[in-house]
Amino acid sequence: MAVDLTPTPDVADLARRTAEFVRDVVVPIEERTGGVARSEDVRIELQRAAKDAGVFAPHVAPEYGGHGLDMRGRAAVFEEAGYSLLGPLALNIAAPDEGNMHMLEAIATDEQKERYLRPLASGEIRSCFAMTEPAPGAGSDPSALTTYAEREEGGWRIEGRKWFITGAEGAGFAICMARTSGKPGEAGGATMFLVDADNPGMKTVRHIDTLDESLYGGHIELVFDNCRVPDDAVLGEVDEGFRYAQVRLGPARMTHCMRWLGIARRAQDIAVARAAEREVFGSRLGDLGMVQQMIADNEIDIAASRGLILQACWELDQGRSGSQSTAIAKTFCAEAVWRVVDRAVQICGSLGISGDVLLGRFLREVRPFRIYDGPSETHRWAIARRVMRRHDAEATR
Amino acid sequence: MAVDLTPTPDVADLARRTAEFVRDVVVPIEERTGGVARSEDVRIELQRAAKDAGVFAPHVAPEYGGHGLDMRGRAAVFEEAGYSLLGPLALNIAAPDEGNMHMLEAIATDEQKERYLRPLASGEIRSCFAMTEPAPGAGSDPSALTTYAEREEGGWRIEGRKWFITGAEGAGFAICMARTSGKPGEAGGATMFLVDADNPGMKTVRHIDTLDESLYGGHIELVFDNCRVPDDAVLGEVDEGFRYAQVRLGPARMTHCMRWLGIARRAQDIAVARAAEREVFGSRLGDLGMVQQMIADNEIDIAASRGLILQACWELDQGRSGSQSTAIAKTFCAEAVWRVVDRAVQICGSLGISGDVLLGRFLREVRPFRIYDGPSETHRWAIARRVMRRHDAEATR
Amino acid sequence: MAVDLTPTPDVADLARRTAEFVRDVVVPIEERTGGVARSEDVRIELQRAAKDAGVFAPHVAPEYGGHGLDMRGRAAVFEEAGYSLLGPLALNIAAPDEGNMHMLEAIATDEQKERYLRPLASGEIRSCFAMTEPAPGAGSDPSALTTYAEREEGGWRIEGRKWFITGAEGAGFAICMARTSGKPGEAGGATMFLVDADNPGMKTVRHIDTLDESLYGGHIELVFDNCRVPDDAVLGEVDEGFRYAQVRLGPARMTHCMRWLGIARRAQDIAVARAAEREVFGSRLGDLGMVQQMIADNEIDIAASRGLILQACWELDQGRSGSQSTAIAKTFCAEAVWRVVDRAVQICGSLGISGDVLLGRFLREVRPFRIYDGPSETHRWAIARRVMRRHDAEATR
Amino acid sequence: MAVDLTPTPDVADLARRTAEFVRDVVVPIEERTGGVARSEDVRIELQRAAKDAGVFAPHVAPEYGGHGLDMRGRAAVFEEAGYSLLGPLALNIAAPDEGNMHMLEAIATDEQKERYLRPLASGEIRSCFAMTEPAPGAGSDPSALTTYAEREEGGWRIEGRKWFITGAEGAGFAICMARTSGKPGEAGGATMFLVDADNPGMKTVRHIDTLDESLYGGHIELVFDNCRVPDDAVLGEVDEGFRYAQVRLGPARMTHCMRWLGIARRAQDIAVARAAEREVFGSRLGDLGMVQQMIADNEIDIAASRGLILQACWELDQGRSGSQSTAIAKTFCAEAVWRVVDRAVQICGSLGISGDVLLGRFLREVRPFRIYDGPSETHRWAIARRVMRRHDAEATR
Repeated sequence: MAVDLTPTPDVADLARRTAEFVRDVVVPIEERTGGVARSEDVRIELQRAAKDAGVFAPHVAPEYGGHGLDMRGRAAVFEEAGYSLLGPLALNIAAPDEGNMHMLEAIATDEQKERYLRPLASGEIRSCFAMTEPAPGAGSDPSALTTYAEREEGGWRIEGRKWFITGAEGAGFAICMARTSGKPGEAGGATMFLVDADNPGMKTVRHIDTLDESLYGGHIELVFDNCRVPDDAVLGEVDEGFRYAQVRLGPARMTHCMRWLGIARRAQDIAVARAAEREVFGSRLGDLGMVQQMIADNEIDIAASRGLILQACWELDQGRSGSQSTAIAKTFCAEAVWRVVDRAVQICGSLGISGDVLLGRFLREVRPFRIYDGPSETHRWAIARRVMRRHDAEATR
Repeated sequence: MAVDLTPTPDVADLARRTAEFVRDVVVPIEERTGGVARSEDVRIELQRAAKDAGVFAPHVAPEYGGHGLDMRGRAAVFEEAGYSLLGPLALNIAAPDEGNMHMLEAIATDEQKERYLRPLASGEIRSCFAMTEPAPGAGSDPSALTTYAEREEGGWRIEGRKWFITGAEGAGFAICMARTSGKPGEAGGATMFLVDADNPGMKTVRHIDTLDESLYGGHIELVFDNCRVPDDAVLGEVDEGFRYAQVRLGPARMTHCMRWLGIARRAQDIAVARAAEREVFGSRLGDLGMVQQMIADNEIDIAASRGLILQACWELDQGRSGSQSTAIAKTFCAEAVWRVVDRAVQICGSLGISGDVLLGRFLREVRPFRIYDGPSETHRWAIARRVMRRHDAEATR
Repeated sequence: MAVDLTPTPDVADLARRTAEFVRDVVVPIEERTGGVARSEDVRIELQRAAKDAGVFAPHVAPEYGGHGLDMRGRAAVFEEAGYSLLGPLALNIAAPDEGNMHMLEAIATDEQKERYLRPLASGEIRSCFAMTEPAPGAGSDPSALTTYAEREEGGWRIEGRKWFITGAEGAGFAICMARTSGKPGEAGGATMFLVDADNPGMKTVRHIDTLDESLYGGHIELVFDNCRVPDDAVLGEVDEGFRYAQVRLGPARMTHCMRWLGIARRAQDIAVARAAEREVFGSRLGDLGMVQQMIADNEIDIAASRGLILQACWELDQGRSGSQSTAIAKTFCAEAVWRVVDRAVQICGSLGISGDVLLGRFLREVRPFRIYDGPSETHRWAIARRVMRRHDAEATR
Repeated sequence: MAVDLTPTPDVADLARRTAEFVRDVVVPIEERTGGVARSEDVRIELQRAAKDAGVFAPHVAPEYGGHGLDMRGRAAVFEEAGYSLLGPLALNIAAPDEGNMHMLEAIATDEQKERYLRPLASGEIRSCFAMTEPAPGAGSDPSALTTYAEREEGGWRIEGRKWFITGAEGAGFAICMARTSGKPGEAGGATMFLVDADNPGMKTVRHIDTLDESLYGGHIELVFDNCRVPDDAVLGEVDEGFRYAQVRLGPARMTHCMRWLGIARRAQDIAVARAAEREVFGSRLGDLGMVQQMIADNEIDIAASRGLILQACWELDQGRSGSQSTAIAKTFCAEAVWRVVDRAVQICGSLGISGDVLLGRFLREVRPFRIYDGPSETHRWAIARRVMRRHDAEATR
């Protein structure tokens, strides 16, 4: 009943076992593959190993084969999984599947759960979340949504273009956000649709070449062209898509942070190991003041990130919206993780930008996190607006 | 048994009442005095009001008239007290008295507690902690301690010079660190002595003029010159002074952070109020992007500081040393609070550097916190050394 | 005819003699007075000494007793003068007199020059520039000007309120910006008026208490209440005030930068001297990596500031507007000088925030420079707008 | 004879023509190739075009077919060439050839110039500079050099390992630093040797996979194993290699800065174009405050970098060592260019990290510049040491 930061014994145990699994099983595969799983073989190998180790699907309800962790529990376990770029894929907690499972559990019908959630939770299939659009469509500003769905006999017809649809390559289905009322720029009127991969109206335009490469299934540009779906493809209620997106976004932001915090710790460990063994100018690298400063700043950034994640997760577990605390945590973590990896590169010098260690890869992978899931600027704008509104509300009381 | 960030109802209630007390009673006095209590009248008025409001001495054991809060409880209440520069004085939780009470509770004899702790806890007297010395003595590096005490019949004779002894002006007694064995530069051999203010061997050299001015009793330079004290003036064990100093320092660092976090929140509130009312270039100040960025960064810094304080306090309450977590929290908070106040000044423009608001005063008060209680550089050095040692220990296992 | 950074021999000689004068004569007075000249005696003593040393009024035309330096020459000499807080006062190049002389030389009539410029240039009298107004008047946005002047028989009547009018206390006259056409928010219609100190319609409301205190004559709040001035009090043309203000502002921004760059160098010298003599943890302070980093960053900030000042001065001397280069230089220098002083404080530790060295004073003096003469945010906004306009112009070509 | 920032007409004309050439000819090839020339065809096409445009080899003496620019002239022209990743290759001013030509002009014999400099200047062959070694050899600390050469009849035998040897793949010859006296850790005793590519004792171990990929000829690990060279392979004097390396390093640092400053400007132009066309939340991106801040900070960083480069180049052209000014300029520019590209990515959002624009490529290319040619930490250490030594020298005078 008082402030307590001790995880439950179950969570602590799962986190510990996840850490061991990642170090012993995943990291060797990561080093072999350069951090990028380029085939189903690798994914299947990793997920089989995670199942064997009893650490698979920690976030999913037990009835779908998982451990049923709440957000605080995920914070502990996902950070350990994130210690390797391939850890989240191994545990089946990578984006966007993890967020999709979370949302399906919350709003899908029982039939939809059997058809989409169950195979997704077991790793049998993958999924994607088709929301972002090229300019001037939905990006930082979701209300600019231009993809639309029109009712027709027995269902809907979706028309539009999406890009940066993570994981779409090889996904078994997409959750597509489409406007069902209102006009681009209006905050209401979106609906989520479940679209099967074999729907002839959903077509891959191209694989977008990006700085990051480790998210399995890539970042894809899709076109919905005369894409017909039946009525039971509607996920949740018609015109409630934006609200559901918010339901998905808060937790999804946090799980991103958890996973990337793992990479920050990994980068720090690589840098510290280097600082311990490398001598320069007659001193151990890690005994030089400027290097000590970088090591210390990394510790500070990691600790502060963890504290902010915990605060937000606790709020979410209380059933609160967490809109402010998740925005704060996401903004800070995305920048902190970036700083940590950047400092780790600097500590390692030429080695740090060579392929001999994975830091250059990490740098490429974490940079987009300051943009994906809302650029830092959009979050800062939203944070400040909430502060101003709170002030206005108090001032007029 | 799981992670929980809810304070106990008692703590929540005390924090709420402290917040009200500070806003209703302390802030008006603060604005009248410019944030600096320059006489005993003000101190007595403030402390009487705090007693009336039932918020006095929250950290002291009930048997000495307090609320007996642990570190996590202090985190909640001290932050509210710190919302005004005069709040900590009102609640009798200002430095250095608060830290001295903490230490006396932990290591004084029953007689010493009656004689020193009881009147200190009630606000009847004040105290100081005479540790820091001018170069080349004890500063960032405590082991450089040059003040020494020699045994003589019936007691000890202390010789040395101390400076930046906060609160010494008007204090009823000093706790003086003096070397009782070993040489300057050696880590052992210090002892703490209780020295009464009327001891003729303890003399005030001068009041040091400093950038900050709000700590009651000033920063004083003292000389111990043929200063004789009896055997029962020894606090704790002979030669254990450095260990006790560590006992005092961890919690004292955190209570500093809590109090200054209150000032950061206050600065943010002043800036937000200004941003809400001021129009420039046809927009409300708070609707301009660069101002929003500063407001958001303040929120982030405040939230991250709070998370780090909580982590460290929880460790201390567990009986752990907290040496790493308190160093991390102190380093981050001292810099974050500074940034917050600096941004608040910038948001308010010319008004911000005028005496019409207290921000210029806050800026002066918080700057030294990046130096007092260990400069950020010393803490970063210590943080990195612990990381390197942990690595070395794991590597040789 | 090629890029050359060598000053002319005359400028080099004057800069060298100014440096010697400041070190030998001004700094001792500065240390005696704590950096703040609180009486005419000090001002007169300083200016007499500067005349004796042949370094007085370097910026004024020879016919008014000066050395006639262009902006590049000022860059070299003013930086040396700025090495002490009292150097600019000694050389009669302090704000706002220096900028006022610059403007009077450019736009005053011969009679006005005899009456105002000549005694100002000789140090016989001082002046102020009454432009800034309390919100919602002219501040970051000059066009918000609310003080107005109405024509009446034989002259004008000025009504309005000004604040942060630097140097107004004891000034012989004010240059007052007042609206003579248009409405607040419109970019045109301001006129400059020369108002004698004994005009009964110009009244001091109060001396504003500010974080900085070294600008001689303080920051004053003035009221113009039924303030009647004759026709020949108009400086330049009616309704051209905003244009003249721009003429004044570009160079005035740069001379601010030059002077504060001198203080940055001084702060660095103080810190380096401390780093050379202080030992901690068995090393000289200046041999510790984190201290070396601060020393190096100070050098970098100082060098970069100087380069930007030079670029802008060269443009101004070419007769170009320099609006972009002066905005860039002012924004960078104001922040760089602040960082340098802040790092110097940190290097000196407790000493740095004590009155035993002047760094705490410097910190207080330089903070407002990020706000005075346009807050950094306003300059950044203007810089970006020019970039966008340039792009738009090129795109439509 | 006074400070003047106008380039000579010849330099201005060459810079203007270079800018046009890069925009019209090089950028289209760069966009086609993704910024990386992966074959000799591309290099030959680019260099032929540069010759046709009369902008080839601006830095080489006219007798070797160049324009004979001094460092200030290079500053103007190389920045324009650097506007494209392939511009320096086109003009034959890419690292390491450009620095090698500079050094060969300064210290090679006439015969060596005919044999190595002439074909290098014309683009007939390329070269590399084999200095850096894997730990614990020569890296940040050149004196750690472990590769050695032993005298034998008619010449020398070189033994050792080098890595990060830029451009080695396909180079016609290497300039190899080898120890000819003293031991690793001693500052003296290195000699430079010209080693032909077909020497069987110089072997490529591997192409190092690095974050950056645009430097033609890659970063190579080489082994010198029983590598015999004749006496006339010695470049300059025996045992003078470290001194020559310094001769090469100062200018080479600056030409790196010039080229990367071009990329910074390019990144800014891409971001500004995006900010001008993209609308979000009902505003043009470039009209939002946080974006304006990034645009302004980019302008400031670019202007400050240019000023520091100019200062250092002017010193070098005066025959001064420029060790402090080049260290300052290199440290600032490497970090400023990185910040500019990073902000440009952020302004462009998802587009910025996609391959649709070259910003992600630029980010990868500029990151190593904070490490290559001396990590920022090494430069800061050297800058601070010079400041401390200057203080010590003045203090003892």
